Amino acid sequence: MKLSRNSQAIEFSPIRKFSPIATEVKKSGVKVYHLNIGQPDVKTPDCFMDAVRAFDADVLMYQQSQGDIKFLESICDYYKREYDVEYKPTDIVVTMGASEALTMTFTTILDPGDEILIAEPFYSNYQTFVLTSGGIIKPIPTSSKDGYRYASKEKLESALTQKTKAIVCINPGNPTGLALTAEEMDVVADFAIENDLWLIADEAYREYVYDGMKPRSFANIDRLKDNLIVIDSVSKRFSACGARIGFVVSKNEEFMTGVIKLAQSRLCVSTLDQIGSTELFKLPSSYYEEMNKEYRNRRDAAYEEIMQIPDVICHKPGGAFYMMIDLPIEDAEDFLMFLLTEYRDNNETVMFAPASGFYGTPGKGKSEIRIAYVLESNYIKRACQLIRTGLEAYKTKNA
Amino acid sequence: MKLSRNSQAIEFSPIRKFSPIATEVKKSGVKVYHLNIGQPDVKTPDCFMDAVRAFDADVLMYQQSQGDIKFLESICDYYKREYDVEYKPTDIVVTMGASEALTMTFTTILDPGDEILIAEPFYSNYQTFVLTSGGIIKPIPTSSKDGYRYASKEKLESALTQKTKAIVCINPGNPTGLALTAEEMDVVADFAIENDLWLIADEAYREYVYDGMKPRSFANIDRLKDNLIVIDSVSKRFSACGARIGFVVSKNEEFMTGVIKLAQSRLCVSTLDQIGSTELFKLPSSYYEEMNKEYRNRRDAAYEEIMQIPDVICHKPGGAFYMMIDLPIEDAEDFLMFLLTEYRDNNETVMFAPASGFYGTPGKGKSEIRIAYVLESNYIKRACQLIRTGLEAYKTKNA
Repeated sequence: MKLSRNSQAIEFSPIRKFSPIATEVKKSGVKVYHLNIGQPDVKTPDCFMDAVRAFDADVLMYQQSQGDIKFLESICDYYKREYDVEYKPTDIVVTMGASEALTMTFTTILDPGDEILIAEPFYSNYQTFVLTSGGIIKPIPTSSKDGYRYASKEKLESALTQKTKAIVCINPGNPTGLALTAEEMDVVADFAIENDLWLIADEAYREYVYDGMKPRSFANIDRLKDNLIVIDSVSKRFSACGARIGFVVSKNEEFMTGVIKLAQSRLCVSTLDQIGSTELFKLPSSYYEEMNKEYRNRRDAAYEEIMQIPDVICHKPGGAFYMMIDLPIEDAEDFLMFLLTEYRDNNETVMFAPASGFYGTPGKGKSEIRIAYVLESNYIKRACQLIRTGLEAYKTKNA
Repeated sequence: MKLSRNSQAIEFSPIRKFSPIATEVKKSGVKVYHLNIGQPDVKTPDCFMDAVRAFDADVLMYQQSQGDIKFLESICDYYKREYDVEYKPTDIVVTMGASEALTMTFTTILDPGDEILIAEPFYSNYQTFVLTSGGIIKPIPTSSKDGYRYASKEKLESALTQKTKAIVCINPGNPTGLALTAEEMDVVADFAIENDLWLIADEAYREYVYDGMKPRSFANIDRLKDNLIVIDSVSKRFSACGARIGFVVSKNEEFMTGVIKLAQSRLCVSTLDQIGSTELFKLPSSYYEEMNKEYRNRRDAAYEEIMQIPDVICHKPGGAFYMMIDLPIEDAEDFLMFLLTEYRDNNETVMFAPASGFYGTPGKGKSEIRIAYVLESNYIKRACQLIRTGLEAYKTKNA
């Protein structure tokens, strides 16, 4: 009774695999600042739990496989209000987080051996999502020095092969925080259209773009309609990660029919989480503005601290709540183990995600780390200080 | 931009594909009795929503990928209390319903071309779960005349090939309602052990066995430990279908490591649904006894009505809340369409699941239907009457 080759090929999440060690360290009384995981400390809007608490049916029943119609309508209203995009409920299928939206998408479009283009580094779970659908990730290489930019015609075309089926844009990016400019989005859109590719736009952080940039969806590019699959989620936008609610959106009817067949096979998504999420999408634009300001402040606090590290390479990220940091070290996993098991300052230490797990290409990203600036600014500052002072101690130890 | 071959091969759920028509019919004012879907009308125990309403953290955070430790402990206590089986939290991973538990299981054990044995007819979504994992379903044929029994050494061995990787037992059965005897469970267990197969025991209806039978889990068969994967769920047991909570249980550590890697890739399962479900598993044994009695009465009501149909073949099912009925007709889908679109008695009609969708073998099961006796007895009686009188009208029309 062996396990499948796919199971053997799948790796532990680089974001979560050091968690058991951190748990032990915390048990011993050490405070650990968690910059490793995108779990914001921002309050979940009250309207979520208010709606859940008001649920008073006798039976907690299945929902429709494609999602609660009230929730679907609430999503459509949001797209219209915030982005002036017209979606109808049949363009949407509600999923268990963006994760299931991606799994369903890849299962629907990929045959064994088909290739997916995605800028590297990328959110590591894409490896698993694509692998279990039989596909292959073809990374578009980028570099820390260029701030991980990838959306040029040359870069995209050099990764294209006969087997390319789709291009994925996580925008704003995870782990890079890169926010594509409107011009770059157009380049990617035209590339997808010209080469008859699906464009999978993972826009879970869409509202979180900074420095005067206006939030924009690939759905705003009308000519892209048939090619576009938008992956969306409530987790990050509304600090409701424990509500496992995502959705897949497309005007391509053939694609949506494929997704609905998969949705029917797993019956439906949590009824209560949909009831709460329905209210989240009714929040006014001011909610996004306020959150945007909060994360921008956190980013600035993080960036200021990080840039005090000698020989660091870090571009101020334009979106999401992640920052890639290229450190003057050989092995970020080794540095993280040092922080978790040896380094203490005032009985505190810090945790980040080593970035090698965000690369599909073996050996890449070993000196890089990803931090999630999901804590309030003074904690972020302290946590980034600990990276800096921890690095000094690490260098002294290894000298 | 074509869809994948898998997507094209997947069929709409036979349980759900007629739902849009039923929705239209109901809009026109006709009452439709739903015997097509296993959605009980039994009240969800109050402890579920009481626990959910009491949730008062500021942030609705991610849970651990393997599940909320309190929930895992509550499941372990239940297995000990009700079945005298010792599981520890690390033997369990919480999933989005039994559906995700099955998808993860197949992804973890199947390579392309590997075969899964399962008695036919079987819960139709297995087709999708196995297909998307690259595997193949090898059905063990049964017949309505024999009450769909399959657990004999001869039947099992004649389906075995070099590619067989696992045998699935949905016990009690969906759609058949067949409850394996203790002796039959031993036969299947020995077959799995002797042939080095995984035994996937889908026991979502475990407490619902009738006629003096005592609930028993495959986990009660100690020698099966390394081979056994139990699939479980809260939906049916506690009439909480909208809480998308299932779990996969195994003492095989290698297998569980594979499952945890998949669980990490999709982060976690609904935090609130886990909080509610934790309380469900604390319900006393008397809860199961009461529910068991309720479903037994419903079964008896259904069976009594159904047996009044001339030339029907129906074995009184020993478990779950499904009944297969072999009707004296050629095409159950055609009969269902007649009931939905033409037949009315006192402005009422009835809906069931045509059974051909529960067969992997093309052409089989066309005269059979599955009903779910999930409504209270007087409704069940009325609904089964409508099948009988509808059938008379259908025969007259086609005469």
